Amino acid sequence: MQLFFTSQTDGNNAFLDAEETRHLKVLRKNVGDAIQVIDGKGLLLDCVISRIGKDSTDLDIKKQARQQRPRKYYFHLYVAPTKQNERMEWMLEKAVEAGLDEITFLETEHSEKTRINMGRLQKIAVSAIKQSGQYYLPLIHPLIKLDQVPVDDHTFIAYCGVAEKAGLKDAILPLKENAVISILIGPEGDFSEKEANDMMHKGARGISLGNSRLRTETAALYCAIMLDNLE
Amino acid sequence: MQLFFTSQTDGNNAFLDAEETRHLKVLRKNVGDAIQVIDGKGLLLDCVISRIGKDSTDLDIKKQARQQRPRKYYFHLYVAPTKQNERMEWMLEKAVEAGLDEITFLETEHSEKTRINMGRLQKIAVSAIKQSGQYYLPLIHPLIKLDQVPVDDHTFIAYCGVAEKAGLKDAILPLKENAVISILIGPEGDFSEKEANDMMHKGARGISLGNSRLRTETAALYCAIMLDNLE
Repeated sequence: MQLFFTSQTDGNNAFLDAEETRHLKVLRKNVGDAIQVIDGKGLLLDCVISRIGKDSTDLDIKKQARQQRPRKYYFHLYVAPTKQNERMEWMLEKAVEAGLDEITFLETEHSEKTRINMGRLQKIAVSAIKQSGQYYLPLIHPLIKLDQVPVDDHTFIAYCGVAEKAGLKDAILPLKENAVISILIGPEGDFSEKEANDMMHKGARGISLGNSRLRTETAALYCAIMLDNLE
Repeated sequence: MQLFFTSQTDGNNAFLDAEETRHLKVLRKNVGDAIQVIDGKGLLLDCVISRIGKDSTDLDIKKQARQQRPRKYYFHLYVAPTKQNERMEWMLEKAVEAGLDEITFLETEHSEKTRINMGRLQKIAVSAIKQSGQYYLPLIHPLIKLDQVPVDDHTFIAYCGVAEKAGLKDAILPLKENAVISILIGPEGDFSEKEANDMMHKGARGISLGNSRLRTETAALYCAIMLDNLE
Protein backbone atom coordinates (compact mmCIF):
# COMPACT_ATOMS: atom_id res chain seq x y z
CA MET A 1 0.00 0.00 0.00
CA GLN A 2 1.26 3.45 -0.98
CA LEU A 3 1.86 5.70 2.03
CA PHE A 4 1.71 9.49 2.09
CA PHE A 5 3.51 11.74 4.54
CA THR A 6 2.06 14.64 6.50
CA SER A 7 3.77 17.03 8.85
CA GLN A 8 0.52 18.82 9.66
CA THR A 9 -2.42 17.26 11.44
CA ASP A 10 -5.00 18.28 13.99
CA GLY A 11 -7.28 15.69 15.54
CA ASN A 12 -9.71 15.53 12.59
CA ASN A 13 -7.81 16.71 9.55
CA ALA A 14 -4.45 16.24 7.93
CA PHE A 15 -2.80 18.25 5.17
CA LEU A 16 -0.38 17.28 2.43
CA ASP A 17 2.30 19.68 1.25
CA ALA A 18 3.20 20.54 -2.35
CA GLU A 19 5.52 17.56 -2.81
CA GLU A 20 3.01 15.02 -1.51
CA THR A 21 0.19 16.68 -3.45
CA ARG A 22 2.24 16.30 -6.63
CA HIS A 23 2.72 12.66 -5.76
CA LEU A 24 -1.03 12.24 -5.16
CA LYS A 25 -1.72 13.62 -8.62
CA VAL A 26 0.83 11.31 -10.25
CA LEU A 27 -1.09 8.41 -8.69
CA ARG A 28 -4.36 9.94 -10.07
CA LYS A 29 -6.07 10.14 -6.71
CA ASN A 30 -9.33 12.09 -6.52
CA VAL A 31 -11.51 13.73 -3.89
CA GLY A 32 -13.33 10.96 -2.02
CA ASP A 33 -10.50 8.41 -2.39
CA ALA A 34 -9.13 6.71 0.70
CA ILE A 35 -5.38 6.93 1.36
CA GLN A 36 -3.02 6.01 4.18
CA VAL A 37 -0.89 8.71 5.70
CA ILE A 38 1.98 8.63 8.19
CA ASP A 39 3.17 11.53 10.32
CA GLY A 40 6.69 10.17 10.88
CA LYS A 41 6.04 10.07 14.63
CA GLY A 42 4.32 6.72 14.79
CA LEU A 43 0.79 7.56 13.62
CA LEU A 44 -0.84 5.71 10.75
CA LEU A 45 -3.89 7.63 9.54
CA ASP A 46 -6.70 6.29 7.36
CA CYS A 47 -7.91 9.35 5.48
CA VAL A 48 -10.32 10.41 2.78
CA ILE A 49 -9.33 13.21 0.42
CA SER A 50 -11.62 16.23 0.86
CA ARG A 51 -9.88 18.79 -1.36
CA ILE A 52 -7.00 18.74 -3.83
CA GLY A 53 -5.47 22.16 -4.42
CA LYS A 54 -2.59 23.34 -6.54
CA ASP A 55 0.03 22.95 -3.80
CA SER A 56 -1.81 21.32 -0.94
CA THR A 57 -4.36 18.64 -0.13
CA ASP A 58 -6.89 18.44 2.70
CA LEU A 59 -7.77 15.10 4.26
CA ASP A 60 -10.44 13.91 6.67
CA ILE A 61 -9.00 11.52 9.22
CA LYS A 62 -11.25 8.48 9.58
CA LYS A 63 -9.12 6.36 11.83
CA GLN A 64 -5.77 6.61 13.47
CA ALA A 65 -3.49 4.01 15.01
CA ARG A 66 -0.26 4.44 16.89
CA GLN A 67 2.47 2.07 15.73
CA GLN A 68 5.25 0.64 17.87
CA ARG A 69 8.88 1.30 17.07
CA PRO A 70 9.92 -1.97 15.48
CA ARG A 71 13.46 -2.18 16.79
CA LYS A 72 14.96 -3.43 19.99
CA TYR A 73 17.44 -0.54 20.16
CA TYR A 74 17.34 3.16 19.45
CA PHE A 75 20.13 3.80 16.95
CA HIS A 76 21.82 7.17 16.70
CA LEU A 77 24.34 7.21 13.86
CA TYR A 78 27.09 9.81 13.90
CA VAL A 79 28.83 9.89 10.56
CA ALA A 80 31.19 12.14 8.63
CA PRO A 81 29.65 13.06 5.29
CA THR A 82 31.33 11.41 2.31
CA LYS A 83 33.10 13.61 -0.20
CA GLN A 84 30.61 12.74 -2.92
CA ASN A 85 27.09 13.93 -2.25
CA GLU A 86 25.74 11.00 -4.16
CA ARG A 87 27.32 8.45 -1.82
CA MET A 88 26.03 10.31 1.22
CA GLU A 89 22.51 10.43 -0.16
CA TRP A 90 22.62 6.72 -0.97
CA MET A 91 23.83 6.04 2.53
CA LEU A 92 20.98 7.99 4.05
CA GLU A 93 18.35 6.37 1.84
CA LYS A 94 19.61 2.86 2.57
CA ALA A 95 20.30 3.35 6.27
CA VAL A 96 16.81 4.77 6.76
CA GLU A 97 15.31 1.87 4.81
CA ALA A 98 17.23 -0.60 6.95
CA GLY A 99 16.25 1.32 10.06
CA LEU A 100 17.75 4.07 12.18
CA ASP A 101 16.36 6.61 14.59
CA GLU A 102 18.66 9.59 14.55
CA ILE A 103 21.57 10.74 12.43
CA THR A 104 24.10 13.47 13.14
CA PHE A 105 26.75 14.53 10.67
CA LEU A 106 30.29 14.98 11.95
CA GLU A 107 33.03 17.42 11.16
CA THR A 108 36.35 15.65 11.65
CA GLU A 109 40.02 16.26 11.01
CA HIS A 110 40.06 14.27 7.77
CA SER A 111 36.63 15.44 6.58
CA GLU A 112 36.76 16.74 3.04
CA LYS A 113 33.17 17.85 3.20
CA THR A 114 31.83 20.28 5.73
CA ARG A 115 28.49 21.25 4.25
CA ILE A 116 25.32 19.25 3.88
CA ASN A 117 21.99 20.09 2.30
CA MET A 118 19.55 19.44 5.15
CA GLY A 119 16.44 20.03 3.04
CA ARG A 120 17.46 17.46 0.50
CA LEU A 121 18.44 14.88 3.12
CA GLN A 122 15.11 15.39 4.85
CA LYS A 123 13.25 14.67 1.61
CA ILE A 124 15.29 11.52 1.03
CA ALA A 125 14.49 10.30 4.54
CA VAL A 126 10.75 10.91 4.10
CA SER A 127 10.79 9.07 0.80
CA ALA A 128 12.71 6.15 2.33
CA ILE A 129 10.28 5.61 5.21
CA LYS A 130 7.30 5.74 2.86
CA GLN A 131 9.02 3.30 0.51
CA SER A 132 9.90 0.85 3.25
CA GLY A 133 6.64 1.11 5.18
CA GLN A 134 7.99 2.63 8.37
CA TYR A 135 6.15 4.93 10.76
CA TYR A 136 8.99 6.85 12.37
CA LEU A 137 10.97 9.51 10.54
CA PRO A 138 14.56 9.63 11.76
CA LEU A 139 15.76 12.91 13.19
CA ILE A 140 18.48 14.44 11.05
CA HIS A 141 20.86 16.89 12.68
CA PRO A 142 23.24 19.35 11.03
CA LEU A 143 27.02 19.02 11.23
CA ILE A 144 28.67 19.18 14.64
CA LYS A 145 32.31 18.89 15.58
CA LEU A 146 33.43 15.50 16.81
CA ASP A 147 34.30 16.84 20.25
CA GLN A 148 30.70 17.99 20.71
CA VAL A 149 29.38 14.43 20.62
CA PRO A 150 28.03 13.41 24.03
CA VAL A 151 29.74 10.19 25.12
CA ASP A 152 28.30 7.59 27.47
CA ASP A 153 28.84 3.87 27.88
CA HIS A 154 26.57 3.18 24.90
CA THR A 155 28.85 5.14 22.57
CA PHE A 156 30.88 3.13 20.09
CA ILE A 157 33.51 4.21 17.63
CA ALA A 158 34.31 2.29 14.45
CA TYR A 159 37.99 3.11 14.10
CA CYS A 160 40.27 0.97 11.96
CA GLY A 161 43.36 1.80 14.02
CA VAL A 162 42.32 0.12 17.26
CA ALA A 163 43.84 -3.30 17.72
CA GLU A 164 41.53 -4.65 20.37
CA LYS A 165 37.88 -4.16 19.76
CA ALA A 166 34.70 -6.15 20.06
CA GLY A 167 32.48 -7.06 17.15
CA LEU A 168 29.34 -4.94 17.00
CA LYS A 169 27.14 -7.79 18.09
CA ASP A 170 29.20 -8.72 21.15
CA ALA A 171 29.41 -5.08 22.17
CA ILE A 172 25.70 -4.35 21.89
CA LEU A 173 23.90 -7.54 22.82
CA PRO A 174 24.57 -7.24 26.58
CA LEU A 175 22.84 -3.83 26.62
CA LYS A 176 19.28 -3.63 27.75
CA GLU A 177 16.39 -3.22 25.32
CA ASN A 178 15.57 0.29 24.18
CA ALA A 179 19.09 1.45 24.99
CA VAL A 180 20.17 4.42 22.90
CA ILE A 181 23.14 3.16 20.88
CA SER A 182 25.45 5.78 19.39
CA ILE A 183 27.90 4.64 16.73
CA LEU A 184 30.53 6.97 15.29
CA ILE A 185 31.83 6.40 11.78
CA GLY A 186 34.67 8.43 10.32
CA PRO A 187 35.28 9.97 6.92
CA GLU A 188 37.06 8.35 3.94
CA GLY A 189 40.44 8.79 5.67
CA ASP A 190 39.05 7.52 9.00
CA PHE A 191 39.31 9.42 12.29
CA SER A 192 42.78 10.66 13.17
CA GLU A 193 44.56 8.72 15.89
CA LYS A 194 44.21 11.69 18.21
CA GLU A 195 40.49 11.98 17.56
CA ALA A 196 39.92 8.30 18.20
CA ASN A 197 42.03 8.36 21.36
CA ASP A 198 40.23 11.45 22.67
CA MET A 199 36.85 9.81 22.13
CA MET A 200 37.96 6.58 23.76
CA HIS A 201 39.44 8.53 26.63
CA LYS A 202 35.98 10.02 27.18
CA GLY A 203 34.56 6.50 27.29
CA ALA A 204 33.64 5.58 23.73
CA ARG A 205 34.36 1.92 22.97
CA GLY A 206 36.05 0.61 19.82
CA ILE A 207 34.07 -1.80 17.67
CA SER A 208 34.86 -3.69 14.49
CA LEU A 209 32.44 -4.05 11.62
CA GLY A 210 32.78 -7.53 10.13
CA ASN A 211 35.50 -9.14 8.08
CA SER A 212 36.12 -6.48 5.45
CA ARG A 213 37.35 -2.92 5.44
CA LEU A 214 34.17 -0.99 4.70
CA ARG A 215 33.74 2.39 3.09
CA THR A 216 32.09 5.09 5.20
CA GLU A 217 28.66 4.66 3.66
CA THR A 218 28.79 0.85 3.77
CA ALA A 219 29.83 0.96 7.42
CA ALA A 220 26.78 3.09 8.24
CA LEU A 221 24.47 0.68 6.49
CA TYR A 222 26.22 -2.28 8.11
CA CYS A 223 25.38 -0.85 11.55
CA ALA A 224 21.75 -0.17 10.63
CA ILE A 225 21.23 -3.69 9.30
CA MET A 226 23.02 -5.41 12.18
CA LEU A 227 21.22 -3.40 14.87
CA ASP A 228 17.89 -4.16 13.24
CA ASN A 229 18.63 -7.86 13.54
CA LEU A 230 20.24 -8.42 16.92
CA GLU A 231 18.35 -10.76 19.14
CA MET B 1 47.95 -0.96 2.16
CA GLN B 2 46.98 -0.41 -1.47
CA LEU B 3 46.30 -3.66 -3.34
CA PHE B 4 46.66 -4.25 -7.07
CA PHE B 5 44.84 -6.86 -9.10
CA THR B 6 46.30 -9.27 -11.62
CA SER B 7 44.56 -11.83 -13.79
CA GLN B 8 47.85 -13.07 -15.23
CA THR B 9 50.57 -14.80 -13.29
CA ASP B 10 53.00 -17.63 -13.77
CA GLY B 11 55.04 -18.95 -10.87
CA ASN B 12 57.62 -16.17 -10.91
CA ASN B 13 56.03 -13.20 -12.60
CA ALA B 14 52.76 -11.31 -12.57
CA PHE B 15 51.44 -8.76 -15.03
CA LEU B 16 49.17 -5.77 -14.59
CA ASP B 17 46.72 -4.77 -17.31
CA ALA B 18 46.14 -1.27 -18.68
CA GLU B 19 43.67 -0.26 -15.95
CA GLU B 20 45.94 -1.35 -13.10
CA THR B 21 48.96 0.17 -14.82
CA ARG B 22 47.14 3.49 -14.99
CA HIS B 23 46.39 3.14 -11.31
CA LEU B 24 50.05 2.39 -10.56
CA LYS B 25 51.06 5.58 -12.35
CA VAL B 26 48.50 7.65 -10.46
CA LEU B 27 50.15 6.40 -7.27
CA ARG B 28 53.57 7.34 -8.73
CA LYS B 29 55.05 3.88 -8.35
CA ASN B 30 58.39 3.23 -10.06
CA VAL B 31 60.49 0.26 -11.18
CA GLY B 32 62.01 -1.33 -8.09
CA ASP B 33 59.07 -0.43 -5.80
CA ALA B 34 57.39 -3.18 -3.79
CA ILE B 35 53.63 -3.62 -4.17
CA GLN B 36 51.03 -6.14 -3.03
CA VAL B 37 48.95 -7.86 -5.65
CA ILE B 38 45.90 -10.13 -5.44
CA ASP B 39 44.74 -12.57 -8.10
CA GLY B 40 41.13 -12.72 -6.91
CA LYS B 41 41.48 -16.44 -6.29
CA GLY B 42 43.00 -16.26 -2.84
CA LEU B 43 46.64 -15.43 -3.58
CA LEU B 44 48.36 -12.45 -2.03
CA LEU B 45 51.60 -11.70 -3.89
CA ASP B 46 54.48 -9.55 -2.66
CA CYS B 47 55.99 -8.19 -5.85
CA VAL B 48 58.63 -5.81 -7.10
CA ILE B 49 57.99 -3.78 -10.25
CA SER B 50 60.40 -4.78 -13.01
CA ARG B 51 58.98 -2.82 -15.97
CA ILE B 52 56.27 -0.20 -16.42
CA GLY B 53 54.99 0.02 -20.00
CA LYS B 54 52.33 2.13 -21.64
CA ASP B 55 49.52 -0.36 -21.06
CA SER B 56 51.06 -3.09 -18.94
CA THR B 57 53.38 -3.68 -16.02
CA ASP B 58 55.69 -6.61 -15.27
CA LEU B 59 56.26 -7.73 -11.71
CA ASP B 60 58.68 -10.14 -10.04
CA ILE B 61 56.93 -12.24 -7.43
CA LYS B 62 58.97 -12.33 -4.22
CA LYS B 63 56.56 -14.14 -1.97
CA GLN B 64 53.12 -15.58 -2.24
CA ALA B 65 50.62 -16.60 0.39
CA ARG B 66 47.27 -18.30 0.00
CA GLN B 67 44.49 -16.65 2.01
CA GLN B 68 41.49 -18.42 3.51
CA ARG B 69 37.99 -17.49 2.52
CA PRO B 70 36.87 -15.39 5.48
CA ARG B 71 33.24 -16.44 5.62
CA LYS B 72 31.44 -19.34 7.17
CA TYR B 73 29.12 -19.74 4.18
CA TYR B 74 29.49 -19.54 0.43
CA PHE B 75 26.94 -16.99 -0.73
CA HIS B 76 25.48 -17.11 -4.22
CA LEU B 77 23.18 -14.15 -4.81
CA TYR B 78 20.59 -14.36 -7.57
CA VAL B 79 19.09 -10.97 -8.22
CA ALA B 80 17.04 -9.23 -10.87
CA PRO B 81 18.87 -6.14 -12.12
CA THR B 82 17.30 -2.88 -11.02
CA LYS B 83 15.85 -0.59 -13.67
CA GLN B 84 18.48 2.07 -12.98
CA ASN B 85 22.02 1.02 -13.81
CA GLU B 86 23.29 3.22 -11.05
CA ARG B 87 21.39 1.34 -8.35
CA MET B 88 22.58 -1.99 -9.70
CA GLU B 89 26.19 -0.88 -9.77
CA TRP B 90 25.93 0.50 -6.28
CA MET B 91 24.42 -2.80 -5.14
CA LEU B 92 27.26 -4.77 -6.65
CA GLU B 93 29.93 -2.52 -5.16
CA LYS B 94 28.43 -2.69 -1.69
CA ALA B 95 27.50 -6.37 -1.72
CA VAL B 96 31.03 -7.27 -2.82
CA GLU B 97 32.48 -5.02 -0.11
CA ALA B 98 30.28 -6.69 2.50
CA GLY B 99 31.14 -10.09 1.08
CA LEU B 100 29.65 -12.46 -1.47
CA ASP B 101 31.04 -15.29 -3.57
CA GLU B 102 28.92 -15.50 -6.67
CA ILE B 103 26.24 -13.39 -8.30
CA THR B 104 23.85 -14.33 -11.08
CA PHE B 105 21.45 -11.85 -12.64
CA LEU B 106 17.86 -12.96 -13.18
CA GLU B 107 15.35 -12.34 -15.88
CA THR B 108 11.90 -12.38 -14.31
CA GLU B 109 8.33 -11.61 -15.26
CA HIS B 110 8.40 -8.12 -13.74
CA SER B 111 11.97 -7.30 -14.81
CA GLU B 112 12.19 -3.99 -16.58
CA LYS B 113 15.81 -4.53 -17.40
CA THR B 114 17.11 -7.46 -19.39
CA ARG B 115 20.61 -6.34 -20.30
CA ILE B 116 23.66 -5.88 -18.14
CA ASN B 117 27.14 -4.65 -18.93
CA MET B 118 29.32 -7.52 -17.73
CA GLY B 119 32.60 -5.72 -18.38
CA ARG B 120 31.61 -2.78 -16.25
CA LEU B 121 30.28 -4.95 -13.41
CA GLN B 122 33.50 -6.95 -13.45
CA LYS B 123 35.53 -3.74 -13.05
CA ILE B 124 33.35 -2.62 -10.15
CA ALA B 125 33.82 -5.96 -8.41
CA VAL B 126 37.62 -5.83 -8.81
CA SER B 127 37.70 -2.33 -7.44
CA ALA B 128 35.51 -3.33 -4.48
CA ILE B 129 37.69 -6.24 -3.38
CA LYS B 130 40.84 -4.12 -3.64
CA GLN B 131 39.15 -1.37 -1.66
CA SER B 132 37.94 -3.67 1.07
CA GLY B 133 41.06 -5.84 1.28
CA GLN B 134 39.56 -9.11 0.11
CA TYR B 135 41.37 -11.91 -1.72
CA TYR B 136 38.53 -13.59 -3.59
CA LEU B 137 36.87 -12.01 -6.60
CA PRO B 138 33.21 -13.02 -6.80
CA LEU B 139 32.11 -14.81 -9.94
CA ILE B 140 29.65 -12.73 -11.92
CA HIS B 141 27.32 -14.54 -14.29
CA PRO B 142 25.23 -13.11 -17.12
CA LEU B 143 21.43 -13.02 -17.03
CA ILE B 144 19.54 -16.29 -16.84
CA LYS B 145 15.83 -16.96 -16.68
CA LEU B 146 14.43 -17.63 -13.24
CA ASP B 147 13.38 -21.17 -14.18
CA GLN B 148 16.99 -22.01 -15.00
CA VAL B 149 18.10 -21.49 -11.40
CA PRO B 150 19.13 -24.81 -9.84
CA VAL B 151 17.16 -25.34 -6.63
CA ASP B 152 18.27 -27.39 -3.65
CA ASP B 153 17.49 -27.26 0.06
CA HIS B 154 19.90 -24.35 0.50
CA THR B 155 17.94 -22.19 -1.92
CA PHE B 156 15.96 -19.32 -0.41
CA ILE B 157 13.59 -16.87 -2.00
CA ALA B 158 12.91 -13.43 -0.57
CA TYR B 159 9.34 -12.95 -1.69
CA CYS B 160 7.07 -10.42 -0.03
CA GLY B 161 3.89 -12.37 -0.80
CA VAL B 162 4.57 -15.41 1.37
CA ALA B 163 2.81 -15.27 4.70
CA GLU B 164 4.86 -17.84 6.57
CA LYS B 165 8.57 -17.56 6.25
CA ALA B 166 11.60 -17.78 8.47
CA GLY B 167 13.97 -14.91 9.15
CA LEU B 168 17.22 -15.26 7.25
CA LYS B 169 19.15 -16.08 10.38
CA ASP B 170 16.82 -18.84 11.56
CA ALA B 171 16.77 -20.34 8.09
CA ILE B 172 20.52 -20.39 7.58
CA LEU B 173 22.06 -21.00 11.00
CA PRO B 174 21.12 -24.70 11.14
CA LEU B 175 23.06 -25.33 7.90
CA LYS B 176 26.55 -26.70 8.11
CA GLU B 177 29.64 -24.54 7.57
CA ASN B 178 30.74 -23.94 4.02
CA ALA B 179 27.25 -24.68 2.74
CA VAL B 180 26.50 -22.95 -0.54
CA ILE B 181 23.63 -20.60 0.22
CA SER B 182 21.59 -19.34 -2.74
CA ILE B 183 19.28 -16.40 -2.15
CA LEU B 184 16.89 -15.13 -4.81
CA ILE B 185 15.83 -11.49 -4.83
CA GLY B 186 13.23 -10.17 -7.23
CA PRO B 187 12.95 -6.97 -9.26
CA GLU B 188 11.29 -3.70 -8.20
CA GLY B 189 7.83 -5.26 -8.64
CA ASP B 190 8.90 -8.48 -6.84
CA PHE B 191 8.53 -11.96 -8.27
CA SER B 192 5.08 -12.77 -9.62
CA GLU B 193 2.99 -15.08 -7.47
CA LYS B 194 3.35 -17.81 -10.07
CA GLU B 195 7.13 -17.44 -10.18
CA ALA B 196 7.43 -17.61 -6.41
CA ASN B 197 5.09 -20.60 -6.22
CA ASP B 198 6.98 -22.43 -8.95
CA MET B 199 10.28 -21.89 -7.17
CA MET B 200 8.85 -22.98 -3.83
CA HIS B 201 7.29 -26.01 -5.48
CA LYS B 202 10.79 -26.96 -6.64
CA GLY B 203 11.99 -26.69 -3.04
CA ALA B 204 13.10 -23.09 -2.54
CA ARG B 205 12.23 -21.79 0.93
CA GLY B 206 10.69 -18.39 1.67
CA ILE B 207 12.66 -16.05 3.92
CA SER B 208 12.00 -12.59 5.29
CA LEU B 209 14.59 -9.85 5.45
CA GLY B 210 14.15 -7.88 8.65
CA ASN B 211 11.48 -5.47 9.77
CA SER B 212 11.22 -3.18 6.76
CA ARG B 213 10.21 -3.58 3.15
CA LEU B 214 13.55 -3.33 1.36
CA ARG B 215 14.30 -2.25 -2.17
CA THR B 216 15.95 -4.81 -4.43
CA GLU B 217 19.44 -3.43 -3.98
CA THR B 218 19.08 -2.98 -0.21
CA ALA B 219 17.80 -6.55 0.11
CA ALA B 220 20.90 -7.84 -1.67
CA LEU B 221 23.17 -5.94 0.66
CA TYR B 222 21.13 -7.02 3.68
CA CYS B 223 21.81 -10.66 2.78
CA ALA B 224 25.53 -10.08 2.24
CA ILE B 225 25.93 -8.32 5.58
CA MET B 226 23.83 -10.81 7.54
CA LEU B 227 25.55 -13.86 6.04
CA ASP B 228 28.93 -12.36 6.79
CA ASN B 229 27.95 -12.10 10.45
CA LEU B 230 26.06 -15.26 11.33
CA GLU B 231 27.65 -17.28 14.07
